[in-house]
Amino acid sequence: MTDRIIDYIENYTDYHPGLSVDCVVITYYERKLKVLLTESYIMDKWMLPGGFVKNNEDIDDAAIRILRERTGIKNLYLKQFQTFGKVDRVDIEENKQILKRLKASAAARRFYSSRFVTVGYFALVKYDEIAMEAGKDSWIHKWVDVNDVPVLYTDHNHVINEALNMIRLMIDHFPLIDQLLPEKFILPDLKAMYEGILGHSLDKRNFQKKMLTSGLIKRLDERKPVNTCPQPYYYIFNKDRQIQ
Amino acid sequence: MTDRIIDYIENYTDYHPGLSVDCVVITYYERKLKVLLTESYIMDKWMLPGGFVKNNEDIDDAAIRILRERTGIKNLYLKQFQTFGKVDRVDIEENKQILKRLKASAAARRFYSSRFVTVGYFALVKYDEIAMEAGKDSWIHKWVDVNDVPVLYTDHNHVINEALNMIRLMIDHFPLIDQLLPEKFILPDLKAMYEGILGHSLDKRNFQKKMLTSGLIKRLDERKPVNTCPQPYYYIFNKDRQIQ
Repeated sequence: MTDRIIDYIENYTDYHPGLSVDCVVITYYERKLKVLLTESYIMDKWMLPGGFVKNNEDIDDAAIRILRERTGIKNLYLKQFQTFGKVDRVDIEENKQILKRLKASAAARRFYSSRFVTVGYFALVKYDEIAMEAGKDSWIHKWVDVNDVPVLYTDHNHVINEALNMIRLMIDHFPLIDQLLPEKFILPDLKAMYEGILGHSLDKRNFQKKMLTSGLIKRLDERKPVNTCPQPYYYIFNKDRQIQ
Repeated sequence: MTDRIIDYIENYTDYHPGLSVDCVVITYYERKLKVLLTESYIMDKWMLPGGFVKNNEDIDDAAIRILRERTGIKNLYLKQFQTFGKVDRVDIEENKQILKRLKASAAARRFYSSRFVTVGYFALVKYDEIAMEAGKDSWIHKWVDVNDVPVLYTDHNHVINEALNMIRLMIDHFPLIDQLLPEKFILPDLKAMYEGILGHSLDKRNFQKKMLTSGLIKRLDERKPVNTCPQPYYYIFNKDRQIQ
């Protein structure tokens, strides 16, 4: 059994009652948006990396710690986006079975088989900058295309959808490009990323015009060395741009 | 003592531990943004309308119930915007004094003098559509200019600032106009509302151009009957506009 799971069960009084944190980590790889899922031998289903909040820990710090413990990912900017508090969001019976399998004490079972409200965080990460090692808990991880997510534990499918809705809403404000694309990129890659986030295709000319007039990106005086002519210009994210 | 406060204290086991809800209700009146504050004889300080979540109640429903109980406001669209979970956000000692004054039982005191995480909701309302009656709890209410908020209970000043930040971020997406202005309005009123939300003045010509090209508003074939020439056109919110 892994360290943190033992700790959750044996030292349940160290944790804030009825509260958890779940992380939606999104990357962009091979022109597809992907979300990070984890699985452990105690669960039959894949799930988001998540866990519980210590009594003496800010919830934002809990999200960072939990992601590090589960995946080895450090120094990630996690943004809180929504708290999920429907009465029936957790299948209490399923949790009771898990607690039984883990041989939890009666008091720990009572603590964890009550209603939990979960705070959702998301992070946008560059695929090649994520050094994902087996965390202390040695859970298995995988990146899954956001259009291809299996049925997850509790309401985690809903949590992912809400994270994507928030990212869509923020697409013109949040420096997404900076976080998902390499430092210099060509317009077709930028367009594919927007299409992946928005979930529909965009008109090439309108997109190009909108991006160039937005001030969000700057063209470099350098072209990508490909076998087509004219070779496409590289662009960078305009860090000076004021977000209103 | 009011009904709900008695209920909180006597039936504390009916409530989700360590979790509360606070509502930031914003209106626009006399060209100023205003926030709704409440005060009760049990508090020395003004605060946001807020309360606790029942075990058998979705958190979104709790926010609606609490606002109705405190203020009589019904059928308001409340939007969750952030959950506040710093370890030290609540002054535990201050709360212990309040619980003592209310003659709470030892068990109720333990329940309420622990750490609480609060879920923040905001609502944008038309000033003249709010029928604010004394709620069941008969707390006092007042509208305060957002630039003129006194020192509030716990972290409520911070909660208001974060609500305003969220509204600023959403200003071009969320149908703010529809919720804060009368059905037909003139451009100077719209500009003043944007300036109130953004916290700085806007260039008149740029603002006008941006609004007209955005498709967010539609000009009516009707002018406001004022004593200046040319009389300004009325505009309405364009409900057909697709939010991307």
